[in-house]
Amino acid sequence: MRRIYLDHIASTPVHPDVLEAMIPYLKEKFGNPQSLHSPGQQALEAIEDARDRVARLINAGSSEILFTSSGSEANNFALKGLAFANQKKGKHIVLSAIEHQSILHAAKSLERSGFTFFYLPVDKHGMVDPDDVRNAITDETVLVSVMFANGEVGTIEPLQEIAEICRDREVLVHTDAVDAVGNVPVDVKALGVDALSLAGNQFYGPKGSAALFLKKGRRILPFIDGGIQEGGRRAGTEDVPAIVGMGKAADIAFQNMESRMAKMQTLRDSLIKRLPESIDHTVLTGHPEKRLPHHASFCVEFVEGEAMLLNLDMQGIALSSGSACTSRALKASHVLLAMGIDHALAQSSLVFSLIDSISLEDIDYLLEVFPPIIERLRKMSPLYSQYLQEKKK
Amino acid sequence: MRRIYLDHIASTPVHPDVLEAMIPYLKEKFGNPQSLHSPGQQALEAIEDARDRVARLINAGSSEILFTSSGSEANNFALKGLAFANQKKGKHIVLSAIEHQSILHAAKSLERSGFTFFYLPVDKHGMVDPDDVRNAITDETVLVSVMFANGEVGTIEPLQEIAEICRDREVLVHTDAVDAVGNVPVDVKALGVDALSLAGNQFYGPKGSAALFLKKGRRILPFIDGGIQEGGRRAGTEDVPAIVGMGKAADIAFQNMESRMAKMQTLRDSLIKRLPESIDHTVLTGHPEKRLPHHASFCVEFVEGEAMLLNLDMQGIALSSGSACTSRALKASHVLLAMGIDHALAQSSLVFSLIDSISLEDIDYLLEVFPPIIERLRKMSPLYSQYLQEKKK
Repeated sequence: MRRIYLDHIASTPVHPDVLEAMIPYLKEKFGNPQSLHSPGQQALEAIEDARDRVARLINAGSSEILFTSSGSEANNFALKGLAFANQKKGKHIVLSAIEHQSILHAAKSLERSGFTFFYLPVDKHGMVDPDDVRNAITDETVLVSVMFANGEVGTIEPLQEIAEICRDREVLVHTDAVDAVGNVPVDVKALGVDALSLAGNQFYGPKGSAALFLKKGRRILPFIDGGIQEGGRRAGTEDVPAIVGMGKAADIAFQNMESRMAKMQTLRDSLIKRLPESIDHTVLTGHPEKRLPHHASFCVEFVEGEAMLLNLDMQGIALSSGSACTSRALKASHVLLAMGIDHALAQSSLVFSLIDSISLEDIDYLLEVFPPIIERLRKMSPLYSQYLQEKKK
Repeated sequence: MRRIYLDHIASTPVHPDVLEAMIPYLKEKFGNPQSLHSPGQQALEAIEDARDRVARLINAGSSEILFTSSGSEANNFALKGLAFANQKKGKHIVLSAIEHQSILHAAKSLERSGFTFFYLPVDKHGMVDPDDVRNAITDETVLVSVMFANGEVGTIEPLQEIAEICRDREVLVHTDAVDAVGNVPVDVKALGVDALSLAGNQFYGPKGSAALFLKKGRRILPFIDGGIQEGGRRAGTEDVPAIVGMGKAADIAFQNMESRMAKMQTLRDSLIKRLPESIDHTVLTGHPEKRLPHHASFCVEFVEGEAMLLNLDMQGIALSSGSACTSRALKASHVLLAMGIDHALAQSSLVFSLIDSISLEDIDYLLEVFPPIIERLRKMSPLYSQYLQEKKK
């Protein structure tokens, strides 16, 4: 059976060159970077080299990169670490309503320490209005966190404008760029952000590799307390193979950005055009143009996301109906609800996220096997029967 | 040049069978365990299988294992998560004075939330007196955390007795068993602890693999907030290759425990006997018998630890003078100071931690090259000159 993986957003495969770079650090180069002996020194050099590479990918200084074990850890680190380190100014934080669970749940946990939150609304395309940020900031606001791009609907937020507003008001700004870095150009200097989260397994690096960019001079409290790693700001033995892998992945992403984006966009636009032609009552979610180049998401009316996933999986096609971090919870996505999509339609969500090995032929195959699945599922759908009856009247 | 790695405690190499088990998850089996499709399901099965293996190693139930990215994260999770989840009872916590930095610094961070701490003293061997635990517990005490074994001096603490006292007083007990699990039998049921930290790279698993054992029914707040991973208690995409690797490493440790311990003990005891014979003014640190089987630590008077490390490193021998998590800080160890060792002597600390590939011939080589190094270093030592002069008088 043909196998097509269309779930980049959940995790990419590891690039073969990335694995090759990692292997020595899983074999003979196993030292702890904090050890003073040669094996330790060797490991330290490797992670510092990887730090340079990751920094280059987002136009940061090397010392501004702090390695973490996941995007979720980076988001927790940013939100909690910046909040606690700067709380003298105030305890008010502004977030968008469509942030990742690791931001939203970190916020819930900060509420226990007296922090209060304002949640920015989004329009029907999942877009934050910078004017809303301007209006949300109070004298007590210490931090604004708005994601670079949303993984469920692909929309790219107007971050540069948001960051400029924050800078004018002397408010720190963090962005969760986990779904963006390595897939689109992200330049922390041009953006003007103070902190940014990224994850290696979103750009063909290994799981367990991620980082927080923290602008030089910005105060943060450690999140994982302990040893002197990462300048005393993130304790724990560094995961050298994962870090080396992310460094290599950053190189590859940096070098191939334009051509990969162009290829992805062609595939994405083909999907965005052809899927609604093949299956009626299919609506694109997220912004039609300002979206991640490898991301196409839809609601397919009258069919449940989970049923579609499982049926497509039986045909060898792997994709998601939202964030992997909540998928097994099978709830309507908070992102789609915030965009004004109703509960029933939100349950019919599908996210196609493309990886490098996908071809137009794969899209053809998908468009061949998918419509009959939908037809079959709709035949069993009470909502669809109801719709047809009402149409007859 | 002969190369001898004697820094198990900083990090072990990855066992070849462990790497072999990991490779498929760094190649074709790259799914996200939370994805509902087949690649996701495959990854989920792999981590659940690893969970069973890790659970077996410490005689826990599989659902009692929560994966983390490092021992430091597990320690932060335990201390902060248990403290916040159970603070209704009180905000007093009892620790030993010789805990790892990830416990001690997490405690400092909890102080900001109003928690208070009692630090248990240790005797000259680094041993906690269970009676001190009994006396330290108040009606406000919510948690006791005492390490299973100390990585700097090797001493194994009387944890079973400590846990029994805690149980009698209905106080939760956590143990940092990072340096112990996989190297000595650790049975959470026999110990009677509520929580226990362990790390894969202490028993030939990969860096980035660690776990917190949490007894069924015990309440904990998430430390990394976010997605539904690990039963909603630890967010972040699971590091599948690392977890699978730790599972395999747990198997190997479980199967070879007795024979490996016997081999290590022989080497250790040889070192403990012969090093002070080869180099005068060398004193064993930690308990002479109740210590980790792969661990021998000393203070070599009149010589700085760092100088010894660097000179031994030039002869191909890698070891440490304490915890890798603080080594580059080059401060006198809080562990040695708590044991009553003075500042000057504490600077002359050396930790030999043995790995499987070490042979008696390696020890012979060490004992051949080490004494001339010490002789040379002492010749340059003002403290040693002073000692010789005083001796003459």
